[in-house]
Amino acid sequence: MRTIFLIVPVLTSLISSCSAQVQRMPALMPVPAHMEARTGELLIDPSFSVAITGHKDARLQRAVELFLDHLRRQTGITAVDLRITDSSKAALTISCENASKDIPELGEDESYKLDVSSSGAKLNASTTLGVMRGLQTFLQLVHTGPSGFVVPAVSIDDKPRFAWRGLLVDVGRHYIPIEVLKRNLDGMAAVKLNVFHWHISDYQGFRIESKKFPKLQEMGSDGLFYTQDEVRDFIAYARDRGIRIVPEFDMPGHSTSWFVGYPELASGPGPYQIERTWGVLNPAMDPTKEYTYKFLDGFIGEMAKLFPDRFFHIGGDEVNGKEWDANPKIQEFKRAHGMKDNADLQAYFNKRVEQIVSKHGKTMVGWDEILHPDLPKSAVIQSWRGQESLAQAAKQGLRGLLSSGYYLDLMWPTSRHYAVDPMSDAAANLSPEEQKAVLGGEACMWGEYVVGENIDSRIWPRAAAIAERLWSPQEVRDVNSMYQRMEEISQKLDWLGLTHNSGYVPMLRRIVGNVDPSALKALVDVVEPVKEYNREDLASTPPTSTMPLNRLIDAARPESLPARHFSELVDALVAGNLKPGMEPQLRAVLEKWRENHTDLQPFFEQSFLIKEVDSLSQNLSALGAAGLAALEYLDRGEPAPAAWVSQQLSAIDQIKKPQAQVLLVVAPSVQKLIEASAGQTAALPAK
Amino acid sequence: MRTIFLIVPVLTSLISSCSAQVQRMPALMPVPAHMEARTGELLIDPSFSVAITGHKDARLQRAVELFLDHLRRQTGITAVDLRITDSSKAALTISCENASKDIPELGEDESYKLDVSSSGAKLNASTTLGVMRGLQTFLQLVHTGPSGFVVPAVSIDDKPRFAWRGLLVDVGRHYIPIEVLKRNLDGMAAVKLNVFHWHISDYQGFRIESKKFPKLQEMGSDGLFYTQDEVRDFIAYARDRGIRIVPEFDMPGHSTSWFVGYPELASGPGPYQIERTWGVLNPAMDPTKEYTYKFLDGFIGEMAKLFPDRFFHIGGDEVNGKEWDANPKIQEFKRAHGMKDNADLQAYFNKRVEQIVSKHGKTMVGWDEILHPDLPKSAVIQSWRGQESLAQAAKQGLRGLLSSGYYLDLMWPTSRHYAVDPMSDAAANLSPEEQKAVLGGEACMWGEYVVGENIDSRIWPRAAAIAERLWSPQEVRDVNSMYQRMEEISQKLDWLGLTHNSGYVPMLRRIVGNVDPSALKALVDVVEPVKEYNREDLASTPPTSTMPLNRLIDAARPESLPARHFSELVDALVAGNLKPGMEPQLRAVLEKWRENHTDLQPFFEQSFLIKEVDSLSQNLSALGAAGLAALEYLDRGEPAPAAWVSQQLSAIDQIKKPQAQVLLVVAPSVQKLIEASAGQTAALPAK
Repeated sequence: MRTIFLIVPVLTSLISSCSAQVQRMPALMPVPAHMEARTGELLIDPSFSVAITGHKDARLQRAVELFLDHLRRQTGITAVDLRITDSSKAALTISCENASKDIPELGEDESYKLDVSSSGAKLNASTTLGVMRGLQTFLQLVHTGPSGFVVPAVSIDDKPRFAWRGLLVDVGRHYIPIEVLKRNLDGMAAVKLNVFHWHISDYQGFRIESKKFPKLQEMGSDGLFYTQDEVRDFIAYARDRGIRIVPEFDMPGHSTSWFVGYPELASGPGPYQIERTWGVLNPAMDPTKEYTYKFLDGFIGEMAKLFPDRFFHIGGDEVNGKEWDANPKIQEFKRAHGMKDNADLQAYFNKRVEQIVSKHGKTMVGWDEILHPDLPKSAVIQSWRGQESLAQAAKQGLRGLLSSGYYLDLMWPTSRHYAVDPMSDAAANLSPEEQKAVLGGEACMWGEYVVGENIDSRIWPRAAAIAERLWSPQEVRDVNSMYQRMEEISQKLDWLGLTHNSGYVPMLRRIVGNVDPSALKALVDVVEPVKEYNREDLASTPPTSTMPLNRLIDAARPESLPARHFSELVDALVAGNLKPGMEPQLRAVLEKWRENHTDLQPFFEQSFLIKEVDSLSQNLSALGAAGLAALEYLDRGEPAPAAWVSQQLSAIDQIKKPQAQVLLVVAPSVQKLIEASAGQTAALPAK
Repeated sequence: MRTIFLIVPVLTSLISSCSAQVQRMPALMPVPAHMEARTGELLIDPSFSVAITGHKDARLQRAVELFLDHLRRQTGITAVDLRITDSSKAALTISCENASKDIPELGEDESYKLDVSSSGAKLNASTTLGVMRGLQTFLQLVHTGPSGFVVPAVSIDDKPRFAWRGLLVDVGRHYIPIEVLKRNLDGMAAVKLNVFHWHISDYQGFRIESKKFPKLQEMGSDGLFYTQDEVRDFIAYARDRGIRIVPEFDMPGHSTSWFVGYPELASGPGPYQIERTWGVLNPAMDPTKEYTYKFLDGFIGEMAKLFPDRFFHIGGDEVNGKEWDANPKIQEFKRAHGMKDNADLQAYFNKRVEQIVSKHGKTMVGWDEILHPDLPKSAVIQSWRGQESLAQAAKQGLRGLLSSGYYLDLMWPTSRHYAVDPMSDAAANLSPEEQKAVLGGEACMWGEYVVGENIDSRIWPRAAAIAERLWSPQEVRDVNSMYQRMEEISQKLDWLGLTHNSGYVPMLRRIVGNVDPSALKALVDVVEPVKEYNREDLASTPPTSTMPLNRLIDAARPESLPARHFSELVDALVAGNLKPGMEPQLRAVLEKWRENHTDLQPFFEQSFLIKEVDSLSQNLSALGAAGLAALEYLDRGEPAPAAWVSQQLSAIDQIKKPQAQVLLVVAPSVQKLIEASAGQTAALPAK
């Protein structure tokens, strides 16, 4: 039972063997603005200590303690060792000029300089925030060397390209436990993301305690909400990691959960129930009632006190207008105020809400749809539509954030997110002054198909590549380098308790019925969930929020890195670049696939959850057999018969179609093998 | 790269294929006192609900909510579903006669009856505690069937054999984070253990906040201690799971950490520092000073309020007397009081301490050494020496607990712990009345070589077998059944967040240097740490408490279940009982081993942590090669040449010796293969 994972160490060793004598540079992600490798390395042993010179405060102290704690986890050095000292002989000396703002703010200085030599390391920053960023770089540099844990000698001068580097997590559609969110804050800090955008209410759930309007959470959350104490604790946790928390209360649409307890807010007659289906639904707040604004004034006032950040997100997206059109009073209001369409009505609503947000000391953020000539210049536009919206906003004098291209729920490969740049397309043509209005971007983890159990695997490691896009210089774009570094960083993120690499194993065990899931793991490692919104398109019944997320599609990771490694092997073969050892690897993987269906067979009768995987599993075995046959032809140096080739290629066309809502993403590589065996374009190395 | 794990599903499928049509009974551990299988099964789907009839209280409600939460995790059914209802149509109806005691007490009724049919389940118990136990049985019964999650129809009438079923965790030697202890409470509840014995102070650390004597934790813990708020929260967490918390403050020995802040308590001149070495050390409290008893009165009074349980453990073990002998005042005191030896002096100390413990409303517990004719009859003796101590105590009218034979730190195989019965040997000869004095036993997790990262793997799954010994009828002793059930239960324990199955993977990744650790995993899966106290005996320098626990020995599990599976295959072969499919499995495993050293090779130059494993890895490859050669001879039906056999056997003698302080535990099975190939005792099935 060969596991596909095997390819990783082998490839690594093939690559690294050429540079065995060169100083090893561990992966950094994001890549620093400037970096020079030096000679030598700093040993990290139990006597390692940190001195804080210059400015000192409790937050800086906690940041260093957190750093030491992570260093202990990474090395296994016990909790008794690794200390903060006053000694001038400390291995790492931190010099911080000023405190950061008590509450992290947009645009604060995050720059730092890190110099490591074999005799010690120095980290200089003008603020606590810069120290935090530099300490994360230091942690990424730590690796296991031949003589101990070491950091290579290096000189780094680093600062971010964009000031707003966010991750949106939607807890409205599915509640995500607070400890899961916390470990994701740790992951964010590790890759220098600095804004956690908490999409905290939606049609399907109102997830925060309001003391003023308790029916919001009592009737709108199924009992699944965060208390204000939890929220305060979470904000403090984020602050200690240099992360801002921006709450989003989506309005006037995406708001059914508000109406379960407070139907007076809605444009329809009610009563309302928590929504269980997905999509753009009809319920919307009534923008014509003064009651609505009075309520929002009370509610936003309460939340503005709870969330210290200067920015306050009001959503504002996807109002379909059906409830407005169906309500005669609203129609009358529009006529009376000379509004030509629902966009005008929403603009009116936004203006009123902006006044409330502003009255409570906050700056409003909203999605593309809020952009309207009447919108105050202070507002920030978050674009799910693209750089065109950002350019439009910038020309109107408004600041913007890019999220189009960064939707993690679409199950795109990392490379596709990585290629998206906030300053490209329409934004590239902005004047230098206008470009300053582009603050950065946010990866978005929409919540239709995530729960605490699998959300990490949707966010990581892909969000690390988006973090790099937003932090590193624009010219850092090498996709192969990105993947190589991302895989290394992904492993290091495990130390933070993130489950993106490990969490699917118990899910697979559940699917096979509480036995060893190795055979299913071999299959799931080379599949990916269907892309974009195909999960809904392919569903026999419309998915709901109460549907258990315990299928193979829920365990499968968005991007199969084993499939990527396999395709590299096939590409090398087709290009005639196979190195010694690669062909046996290729063969072993194909053999494993060919036999895998037999290994899985016993489970199909035992567990209802695995049944849907039957033909998918057969397909993988077919791919294995076809690939082996193609290898045989290549090996013998004789072209595969045309009839066989065309039969195989048409079988692969079928295999490429989704089965059980997942894609067997190694099919195109096997197709390449077959095509190569027909044309004999590839050369196998001499035996 | 074949993984040895492969054997598990294959064996399972070989076994289960014979009984495919029979109602599947999931593993129960501990085995109930009485159980009858019925026909049919109860479906667990999102509409599953629980009704509570009879007695109701907040703790019972929380127990059911906890049960539903575990059921959601196990099935992946979302948090919105599975509910407590008032409906008479609930799938599970709980009928509870009385509340349990507010604070769990020794000897409370834990019995329950559980009846499951295809139309519903009924759980009856006279107390909340019985309901808790029954709900855990229900959770173990849930499995993935062909048509959904199901519970087989069954009638169970269950109650424990012993009232005190404990797990000792030593946090004195290494601090264990509170969240790690909490998940272990969940594990305990799952297998019906009901006493968490918190060994909270020792030479190397004083791990609890005292408000009266704050220098205890401030100077005696390296900052690694539990606050009183944490302790209260932990006790409440345990109570909600029907678990008592018994604190142990070891005295007069094992107490250096007290003396760092309060040297006046000690018998030596001081000053004292936190100990970093292991063993029986000299420092001991001064039993001759009134100051000592005044201090203990204050301290025990404070702790007696914090810990609600009636029992209070004072340790009392391993006083070597050296500080007493070296102190002229203590010598003088002994003479003046006519004490003939240090045992008399300690008996005096114990009597004084017992008065204090008793004054604060508690019953004293201590290790064997406290047994002395002067000891009050209320005291409880915990025996690390054996059933003889229990018998002696019982004859003296004292109650006892067995821990001899249950020391998890000795790295014994489960079967050895499982064979130990509190009522065997000397205890078997007690009169029925005297036997009542044997309250039960405790598994002991001593802390020299455990930290938060690896402690779960030392406790689980072996503690589940000890739990069965203490709960199930004495005649439940089938070792094969135990192993089969334990493996299934072990997987289910993963849902509680326990890391005994998964936690070693990041440790292995650290050892190989943050890359894929598959090859090292193949090796570590067939090794075990050296047994008993050999780790110290084999160490070149004496181990200390600050030594990082990041070596292979720290990642290796105490008992290799893959090695057990391999030996089953070999035994089947040698006995001529190989079933079809087994021989290829055997061959595949041996091939994997033979190649594994080549796979590991690249890492030896890259990571200092893996270097010590080099010859161990070579040995595994040698075993693989030798086993394959033996298989060849068996296959060909010709006896292996005597010279080859004797050469291989002497190589295996070497291979059996510890390397890097671990044992290659598959060596004896390969030896069997070689011996079989020499004698041709085994028959391979026809091809």
